[in-house]
Amino acid sequence: MTIEIHKVLISGEWRTPRAAGGTFAAVDPMTGDPLPGLYPVSCFADLEEALHAVQVAVRDLRSFGPDGVARFLDLFASAAEARREELVAMAHRETALPEEPRLRSTEFPRLTDQLRQAAAASRDRSWCRATIDTKRNLRSKYGPLAGPVIVFSPNNFPFAFNAVGGGDFAAAVAAGNPVIAKANPGHPGTTRLLAEAAVEALRASGLPPALVQMVYHFEARDGLRLVAHPLTGATAFTGSRPAGLSLKEAADRAGKPISLELSSLNPVFILPGALAERGDEIAAELGVSCTLGSGQFCTKPGMVVFIDDESGRSFLEALKRDFETQPAGYLLSAHVLAGMRKSVDALLRARAVLVAGGRALDGPGFRFAPTLFRTSGRLFLAAPQAFGVEVFGAFSIVVLVEGLDEMKEVAARLEGNLTASVYSARAGEDDTLYDRLEPFLRARAGRLLNDKMPTGVAVSPAMVHGGPFPATGHPGFTSVGIPASLLRFAALHGYDNVRPHRLPPELRDENPTGRMWRLIDGEWTQRSL
Amino acid sequence: MTIEIHKVLISGEWRTPRAAGGTFAAVDPMTGDPLPGLYPVSCFADLEEALHAVQVAVRDLRSFGPDGVARFLDLFASAAEARREELVAMAHRETALPEEPRLRSTEFPRLTDQLRQAAAASRDRSWCRATIDTKRNLRSKYGPLAGPVIVFSPNNFPFAFNAVGGGDFAAAVAAGNPVIAKANPGHPGTTRLLAEAAVEALRASGLPPALVQMVYHFEARDGLRLVAHPLTGATAFTGSRPAGLSLKEAADRAGKPISLELSSLNPVFILPGALAERGDEIAAELGVSCTLGSGQFCTKPGMVVFIDDESGRSFLEALKRDFETQPAGYLLSAHVLAGMRKSVDALLRARAVLVAGGRALDGPGFRFAPTLFRTSGRLFLAAPQAFGVEVFGAFSIVVLVEGLDEMKEVAARLEGNLTASVYSARAGEDDTLYDRLEPFLRARAGRLLNDKMPTGVAVSPAMVHGGPFPATGHPGFTSVGIPASLLRFAALHGYDNVRPHRLPPELRDENPTGRMWRLIDGEWTQRSL
Repeated sequence: MTIEIHKVLISGEWRTPRAAGGTFAAVDPMTGDPLPGLYPVSCFADLEEALHAVQVAVRDLRSFGPDGVARFLDLFASAAEARREELVAMAHRETALPEEPRLRSTEFPRLTDQLRQAAAASRDRSWCRATIDTKRNLRSKYGPLAGPVIVFSPNNFPFAFNAVGGGDFAAAVAAGNPVIAKANPGHPGTTRLLAEAAVEALRASGLPPALVQMVYHFEARDGLRLVAHPLTGATAFTGSRPAGLSLKEAADRAGKPISLELSSLNPVFILPGALAERGDEIAAELGVSCTLGSGQFCTKPGMVVFIDDESGRSFLEALKRDFETQPAGYLLSAHVLAGMRKSVDALLRARAVLVAGGRALDGPGFRFAPTLFRTSGRLFLAAPQAFGVEVFGAFSIVVLVEGLDEMKEVAARLEGNLTASVYSARAGEDDTLYDRLEPFLRARAGRLLNDKMPTGVAVSPAMVHGGPFPATGHPGFTSVGIPASLLRFAALHGYDNVRPHRLPPELRDENPTGRMWRLIDGEWTQRSL
Repeated sequence: MTIEIHKVLISGEWRTPRAAGGTFAAVDPMTGDPLPGLYPVSCFADLEEALHAVQVAVRDLRSFGPDGVARFLDLFASAAEARREELVAMAHRETALPEEPRLRSTEFPRLTDQLRQAAAASRDRSWCRATIDTKRNLRSKYGPLAGPVIVFSPNNFPFAFNAVGGGDFAAAVAAGNPVIAKANPGHPGTTRLLAEAAVEALRASGLPPALVQMVYHFEARDGLRLVAHPLTGATAFTGSRPAGLSLKEAADRAGKPISLELSSLNPVFILPGALAERGDEIAAELGVSCTLGSGQFCTKPGMVVFIDDESGRSFLEALKRDFETQPAGYLLSAHVLAGMRKSVDALLRARAVLVAGGRALDGPGFRFAPTLFRTSGRLFLAAPQAFGVEVFGAFSIVVLVEGLDEMKEVAARLEGNLTASVYSARAGEDDTLYDRLEPFLRARAGRLLNDKMPTGVAVSPAMVHGGPFPATGHPGFTSVGIPASLLRFAALHGYDNVRPHRLPPELRDENPTGRMWRLIDGEWTQRSL
């Protein structure tokens, strides 16, 4: 029996890597056993070839324009749909995420919906914010970068954030950039199937084959070279903080933009009126939000803050019951399991008190009991870096504060986050406290929520999935939400006195679609000049 | 006789620095002699005090809202106007830039115009791009950063880019951020007078005194600490590439945004048809553009590319005559003079040929003859890093290429630039060549010009004064043009299910001004919900 070694996708061809960099297998999280098939680790020669192939693609892409890109994205969504069952089965094997409702009915439609929204944004063209000063004949718009976007994808969304077809991919392509995708080693098979669908769509749309290239893995040092390479346009990285920070350093030094999503605690503050009014209800919501996807969401509430009084104590009891009764789903990898185990030890050392869970489950596969800790505001404030750390998995820590001032101090000591939620009484008893707390949270989170858990991240133009460092690399961007997420991968292009026939269609006098929004002499309009 | 040591502006007070860090004097570029008065070099204690003072200012600022900020900016413009003659005289003494037309009739009105445009943007609020998804009750807008913007200003625009009142200052304040300004040591007196006007305006508007703080100088290592400080929001730096890169490294490592303008060659490509048609006219334009402000513009054409044929040779002759007859104005400092001398030596070593100038002028003060070099496309391509370097001052290099292919190759080897200009024949003979050249320039410059020199940078919403690294730190931003320049100093703030009365006015159902542009359910509109 020969073992199949899968091929990388470079310049429109599935081929064997140029040099032997080793191989790896995906692992079944339900058994811990390797899954069939081996995937190559690429050497830098592959990456360099991909970078050079893009040079041609960039030139060719121009002639297809935004409509060509949109056609590809739509065809890709359809090609993925034609393979839906195969994709769902593969993603389930590789990630142990449930087929229903998660993979088939939630995440898969999100993948295709994102691709189609990206196609619509490309076709609509309003995303590029064409700005015209008729008096001075100055015109500007966002356009593609000078090189490809390198997409590093996370382990927790095999569809919605896949390096091929996921959110960063869709945004980068819709902005007119080729992508060089690095599969997450947790789901290489899913990525391969999506890349096959992409190749079909590329052929059917006639777009340059090097628009989408994909490798499975490479050494960390090759990643650092890749993001800093002169031919690279920008990088998108969603994943662990240490890996992201080392890529950031390399990209920064080379002056290459890098969109990062690194870590987030997503604190939930529950004000006294809300606790008294509907503590049990909120505890149930929190239990669900913390354990959704086995807690492997970047927006999982990792910290809950409320006052240590009678209602607080009974809320904590309700939470404890909730965590104890939530089933322990499978984790994505042995690495996630090891992280939870290590975090339990670290929190115990920091004198936090274990409330629920705290141990791996017996039997095959990677499972860990939903885990809840508690500590005091005083202890948190003495060492915020010990308690305020994201733990991937169904894992959260309660900070019991003495009163409103201490709650505010805890908020003031948080790092940058993707989200911050506040629950308050319906009738307004908590409003004064809210007003005092809000400025601290506003300054430390991309998305502020009221009476709502942060785990749902809708793909909406008004979504903000971003936030101050170290949640992301820059507080002015969002990685979810079309068209805003495209701006991460765009350059601002000015045209000064450029002759009319040489302008891109979006900046000519005539509105190219008749519906595109443009800012003409200070007024947003769909009219032609 | 005692020598006056000027005071720094911290937390609304003019005071002596906390610790003695030494003093410096401004220098008269027309004589090389020190000007009266000494300015202190601040120690880190001053900077830390300024950072803490801002914490209070940020909180207080909220209650004044965008209208309060606008009132301050307008009052500041008026207060500066009341001191115009004093300011013009001081700036002339410190920079040797001519009072007329440059300082009084060009740059001063630009300063006040920018402040008033920033005030209008703050009042109008459309800059924050309020986005509302009514179905999901998601709302987002740009808002201020979590800390002050540190502004480092360049030497060449004592008004328009002054750390107090200049472009970066106006953008940072209009976006709702306090500023900690570091004067350029070339014009500390001008900065002091502007800071005095700002203090008047702060008092008259009632805004927090720590909205504007100013120090004159500090050690490089304290600058690195400042941009990376946890309380810092972001940094704006316009200046030399080595200094900017070292600040960038410090800011990047701390995850703090930094807006950089570092260097630009601003290549001008002259196509054969244009050369034949109006070579003399273009040579005259080029001569003016290269020597404007003694060539001390970030958009000065530092490289001119055309074909080495008969028309090319006669164009070069015209250019030579032009450079030889342009008067040598004063340079801003001995440092600029030394840079020109060093660059002459370096280019001679690289075997470029001196065409005009090349030497400092006798007599007192800092003057250098307008300098033109030439080299061949072949030599340039063999060592682009030797020829493609910005030289501050009236200094340019001609690259004589063999033909169209070599011209394209030269374009492909350029670094990131603020601008790239192309001159072509009026009737269209150069259009094919333009089409082949344009993609290379588009990818390497923020602003692309036709038949126009790059030195004029209008303050327009459609202006792009930005570009790929190393021209700036990020290709998606502009530092000139209101409101776009505000986005460099803004964080994206999402509101998810936030109760209506807790939303910022810009995101409530009712349009807060009745005229503000908002993106509601995919449509730009001025209506209320």
